[in-house]
Amino acid sequence: MIEMQHKFNGYQCSLCGATYGVEEVSYTCPKDGGNLDVLLDIEALHNLSPKQLILTKEQSLWRFLPLLPVGDPKGYHTPLRVAGSTPVFKPEKLAQELGTGNLWIKDESRNPTASFKDRASAVVVARAREIDAEVIVTASTGNAGAALAGMAAAVGQKAVIFAPRNAPPAKVAQLLVFGAKVLLVDGTYDDAFDLTIQAAEEFGWYCRNTGYNPFTAEGKKTAAFEIWEWALRIASNDEEAHLESAANLLSRLSVFVSVGDGNIISGIHKGFKDLQRLGWIDRMPRLFGVQAEGSAAIANAFLAGAESITPVSASTLADSISVDLPRDGIRAVRAARETNGAYILVSDGEIIASIATLGEVGIFAEPAGATSYAGFLRAIRSGVIGVDDPVLIINTGSGLKDVKAAMEAVSPAPVIEPSLAAVKRVLK
Amino acid sequence: MIEMQHKFNGYQCSLCGATYGVEEVSYTCPKDGGNLDVLLDIEALHNLSPKQLILTKEQSLWRFLPLLPVGDPKGYHTPLRVAGSTPVFKPEKLAQELGTGNLWIKDESRNPTASFKDRASAVVVARAREIDAEVIVTASTGNAGAALAGMAAAVGQKAVIFAPRNAPPAKVAQLLVFGAKVLLVDGTYDDAFDLTIQAAEEFGWYCRNTGYNPFTAEGKKTAAFEIWEWALRIASNDEEAHLESAANLLSRLSVFVSVGDGNIISGIHKGFKDLQRLGWIDRMPRLFGVQAEGSAAIANAFLAGAESITPVSASTLADSISVDLPRDGIRAVRAARETNGAYILVSDGEIIASIATLGEVGIFAEPAGATSYAGFLRAIRSGVIGVDDPVLIINTGSGLKDVKAAMEAVSPAPVIEPSLAAVKRVLK
Repeated sequence: MIEMQHKFNGYQCSLCGATYGVEEVSYTCPKDGGNLDVLLDIEALHNLSPKQLILTKEQSLWRFLPLLPVGDPKGYHTPLRVAGSTPVFKPEKLAQELGTGNLWIKDESRNPTASFKDRASAVVVARAREIDAEVIVTASTGNAGAALAGMAAAVGQKAVIFAPRNAPPAKVAQLLVFGAKVLLVDGTYDDAFDLTIQAAEEFGWYCRNTGYNPFTAEGKKTAAFEIWEWALRIASNDEEAHLESAANLLSRLSVFVSVGDGNIISGIHKGFKDLQRLGWIDRMPRLFGVQAEGSAAIANAFLAGAESITPVSASTLADSISVDLPRDGIRAVRAARETNGAYILVSDGEIIASIATLGEVGIFAEPAGATSYAGFLRAIRSGVIGVDDPVLIINTGSGLKDVKAAMEAVSPAPVIEPSLAAVKRVLK
Repeated sequence: MIEMQHKFNGYQCSLCGATYGVEEVSYTCPKDGGNLDVLLDIEALHNLSPKQLILTKEQSLWRFLPLLPVGDPKGYHTPLRVAGSTPVFKPEKLAQELGTGNLWIKDESRNPTASFKDRASAVVVARAREIDAEVIVTASTGNAGAALAGMAAAVGQKAVIFAPRNAPPAKVAQLLVFGAKVLLVDGTYDDAFDLTIQAAEEFGWYCRNTGYNPFTAEGKKTAAFEIWEWALRIASNDEEAHLESAANLLSRLSVFVSVGDGNIISGIHKGFKDLQRLGWIDRMPRLFGVQAEGSAAIANAFLAGAESITPVSASTLADSISVDLPRDGIRAVRAARETNGAYILVSDGEIIASIATLGEVGIFAEPAGATSYAGFLRAIRSGVIGVDDPVLIINTGSGLKDVKAAMEAVSPAPVIEPSLAAVKRVLK
């Protein structure tokens, strides 16, 4: 076993507030099943500056290793070492059309397996290596599984994936090509989720399940760290001198992200909370969760002001955020509530339209990825945010993962005979 | 029009050797139709060091802008600015299985539109902006078109793509989502190619066609520059102290790349030739072109020692390298011949098997991407290269672009009922 570094003090239940030591628990709160927050050893870090803590030579999420509750997973020169550090684009054309001044898109489709989930899986793989786990298992509609399969393959770690039988073929192909053992469960994502937990217990596997394993949010929080670094960079860039300082930019920023089980938005929230505890930021950005109307369990709770999540019978073409029972719903509600953000619902039609809109500026998003942009459009049209507010939208996954949805977003291309006359005809 | 920077002196025909000034020609040699090599202004660059010329702050192919025959295309904070700078992985598991000491894979699937072609399209877009072209047109089996559509969309440039009717749906979806005008030609790639040239002439469009526009190879040469930088980095890395110096590493290196129309391998060759002319490298790596047995026009010429290319009737599942008449064949033959490399043929079965092998180390390649690995296996098994030779294999595109081929590479996942008993049954 690699030496445990004890870079964290333990866990705290997000429901009852009970705290646990590093070795006491592995997944959720034994008392009430609540999601556990990893408690960083802030005391040990507090007197250190970003310069002392951030491994700036790393062009990946591992630049934040000192702020993660895991040791160095090694795996140099593998896909594991290039997760994160995704680009932030400035789609001028869309900003102009909307009359907004300050619009940015963080493109998570550029992760190694083409989705945001690589962040979580990379950190869970690091944790698995540290605790000497032989097999990692997860339930997944696709992206989380592909991310686990890819990150595990990168370093020779065994992975087992339970996917619902109706997961898109492109995502299942990725799992299989990465050499994971894949079991297609004849049931829902939730059936696969429960089965995974049973199997992990039965076979001694390490369970990566989203909204269950506390380390997934720790991986996802690195996106918040990158947004913070991006704000520093933008604010110090001469070109962008009309922009405010990083602190001012961050405090006025609205971040839009699609929400399924709730773990991405709570992971991002955790990242900003860590930065606040470290004293590196003052105020957090507003976090906006966007759900499909047909899979709105968390948005429903937010809008009702509820402190519990009522399951729905989910139905949306955005398969990555189609979830009956979100496993990280409470923290996801709080992420918006505690940052003066909100939840926004969008239709499948708006999601499809947003795929085409993002494509026009060179970003190819899967439906769940375009959902955040659709939510931003709603927010700006309804005045929830102002046209001058700086906005960062997160595209969570690549459109190549769901070509069928992409085809719905566009008109088919005309077929022509190979002649100039035919070209002239279709160009009119 | 943006001011022309005249960073190059003109063009030289790769067949007859005739030279032309910057403004004299646009595409191929007016005398014999030969591919034109762009002649960098080596005199102006020769006394400058890499430190003076490479824009090391850029994490993209634009770090080599001073070595490219185009001006700065701007487009900051867009996908255009993040093409290139792809990672190089070290697949220890595969190296161990083969008993080789020094195996690396450069993963071009991590470009913005998920293929090597982004390099060419990014530089052609820069050229189009410089000459004030309103529309860029290209023929493409898919990747080059997607790359042009994506890079053009990034900066608001209009693009028209002529694709053969049988191009894979995932690739066509990408074209359409990026907002390009797409015409599916009821004919072969070669029909689409010819039609594109006619249309460009008729409508005053700028033609990006591979093996026709001299700037595509200029974009692709940036991969050679990155391989050179990688060698410097590896050689200076303490961890890898057992490795030789960068110069020694490069001169012993064998590079494997799949070949369709021949433009990638000739672009890489051009890059190493530029480095040699600059006096930055002494000896070049050996360049190995790998073709599918069913699309072997260039390999045939190489193996016959011929100086001309005889078309074939191409048939391989690796659609990106399925070409009847390669448009950059002569230079592609020379790339191998002049570097003491070779051409290698592989079957579709070997290509499919290599998709699975690369997946096991976390790299998801499309068939044309896995072809280079299949060729490497042939080379090492037949003794064309030694087990101690350092090897760098280029994966040219993402497996997400051709899911059907990926499914052929793996056994389908079993479907189980959601019970632990069912899990135990399939795990046996």
